Amino acid sequence: MSLQPQAPAVLVVAGTHGNERNAPWLLQHWQRQPEALADAGLALELVIGNPGAWALNQRYLDRDLNRCFQPALLADPGAGGAEPARARELLWRHGPAGTQPCSVVFDLHSTTSGMGNCLVLYGRRPADLALAAAIQARLGLPVYLHEGDASQSGFLVERWPCGLVIEVGPVPQGVVQATICRQTQLALEAGLAVLAAARRGQLRLPSALVVHRHLGSLDLPRDSEGQPLACLHPQLQHRDWRPLQAGDPLFSDPEGHVQAWSPDASAAPDGPVVPLFINEAAYGEKGIALSLTRRERLPAEPGWAQELVALAAGLGAPL
Amino acid sequence: MSLQPQAPAVLVVAGTHGNERNAPWLLQHWQRQPEALADAGLALELVIGNPGAWALNQRYLDRDLNRCFQPALLADPGAGGAEPARARELLWRHGPAGTQPCSVVFDLHSTTSGMGNCLVLYGRRPADLALAAAIQARLGLPVYLHEGDASQSGFLVERWPCGLVIEVGPVPQGVVQATICRQTQLALEAGLAVLAAARRGQLRLPSALVVHRHLGSLDLPRDSEGQPLACLHPQLQHRDWRPLQAGDPLFSDPEGHVQAWSPDASAAPDGPVVPLFINEAAYGEKGIALSLTRRERLPAEPGWAQELVALAAGLGAPL
Repeated sequence: MSLQPQAPAVLVVAGTHGNERNAPWLLQHWQRQPEALADAGLALELVIGNPGAWALNQRYLDRDLNRCFQPALLADPGAGGAEPARARELLWRHGPAGTQPCSVVFDLHSTTSGMGNCLVLYGRRPADLALAAAIQARLGLPVYLHEGDASQSGFLVERWPCGLVIEVGPVPQGVVQATICRQTQLALEAGLAVLAAARRGQLRLPSALVVHRHLGSLDLPRDSEGQPLACLHPQLQHRDWRPLQAGDPLFSDPEGHVQAWSPDASAAPDGPVVPLFINEAAYGEKGIALSLTRRERLPAEPGWAQELVALAAGLGAPL
Repeated sequence: MSLQPQAPAVLVVAGTHGNERNAPWLLQHWQRQPEALADAGLALELVIGNPGAWALNQRYLDRDLNRCFQPALLADPGAGGAEPARARELLWRHGPAGTQPCSVVFDLHSTTSGMGNCLVLYGRRPADLALAAAIQARLGLPVYLHEGDASQSGFLVERWPCGLVIEVGPVPQGVVQATICRQTQLALEAGLAVLAAARRGQLRLPSALVVHRHLGSLDLPRDSEGQPLACLHPQLQHRDWRPLQAGDPLFSDPEGHVQAWSPDASAAPDGPVVPLFINEAAYGEKGIALSLTRRERLPAEPGWAQELVALAAGLGAPL
């Protein structure tokens, strides 16, 4: 008798942030009713990302779990706290070389900003781009491409060979809303269907992936003690994905003073700047009132599909 | 030289719940710009209700401060924790017999439910009814009359001779939104203007106060371990203040099973039931998915104005 290596599964993580309640609520439903995700015929591992924070309905206990997946931090035995330990545990258990190995991950998040149903990519790994392009072709979801921001790193999905975030909003922290759950389920079902098609050798990609590439972030105007002097202008609230024009209001104070958007004239040929994650509750502590992106079209390259098909071919079926 | 007793001020409390960020943000603005609330010509005390919880962006540290104002709890030296101590401190400092005495209180809250801009009354004290009726006549704000619920008691405003809650939503916990701040400021300005008119002997009340009287609350359907089996039906989300009709959907599960509203037929002559605080984030832990009320018209009684005028006559002016 020889030990068969286990075919890798698809990892579905909910509650990486413990006060984002919709995906964990769905996940508990999927655990009771596995047929709800059975159509793709893929082996799945369903896990609560940060069960300790989830139990307390807090984003995290000691630090943001979704910034703890930096190789240097994971390898540092001095990096204590609940979340680095949980990051190591998730990798030990469900990492590509884990005891219940997974090669693709969907990390399910929600936001207080008006992001709608969208995908977040971290960098330009070919398999990620293929997965996002095929989901976009099915559902039309917009894609936020996060890259080149040294102040924001260590995201969960980066430690698996392929993976992306499904982000849905607006919904308050601590609240379950049926429409947010439905959007989350639709995006995940589309992702699983793409993987199933790739596993069957039937992956079809569109000619290009449209992304909104991260340029940087803006903080609120603050006084010398760090207290905000203004808040987001009401005209910008829930206007994620809509291009900013020169003179558009960004911030206002209770006296009615307005700070407007003033684009860098030299950047104009590249097209307008598009704000995302506008007034996300959890980003206040990170000094982010909104992020700025630019819409770009990435023509699909042959390597994208090749990488995803190679990964998907190894995926296991449900036991 | 004799010590003059200090004329009582109006107490304005923001951040009784530390993750309701809009009112504390406004309050910091008022502290920098006192003229923003100067029109009424009243002495004000502006305080953060729960500064420890506010600093951590949490609703509370040990227990809900806005349930700690029960006389028995306040008098019990064994009732420890941050919030009972803070409740005693607020009364010692700003209570009617405090070192900086206040006789009227506005407690500023926000909610994730679609309550709009509204007032919450606790019981039927004549001065409270007069204050609410006069604000309602100015701004048309709806009023939630909370009474007769033994499971929910110990509210802050009950320990002052007159006071009410200004409640504004929907807004996520941890988020400042300009329109929520503006609504909060408008309601407070109306309340201060009413007190100023009463102090001048020019209080005018409408013929009646329209309230939505608390009947009880509904929890989500749950399994034997207390886990929710359904969430709020999407058609009910943000439908606060709209009467429920028989058959209206209340809850739904991810499979599409719907639980509908089935009114008690014997209660029909009293008019429809109106849901409030639908899907308020903080009420999950209290087992409240929504509260049920009935719209009632309370004809104004002469005692209402008399009580408020007597209180307002003693209010101090700014130093």
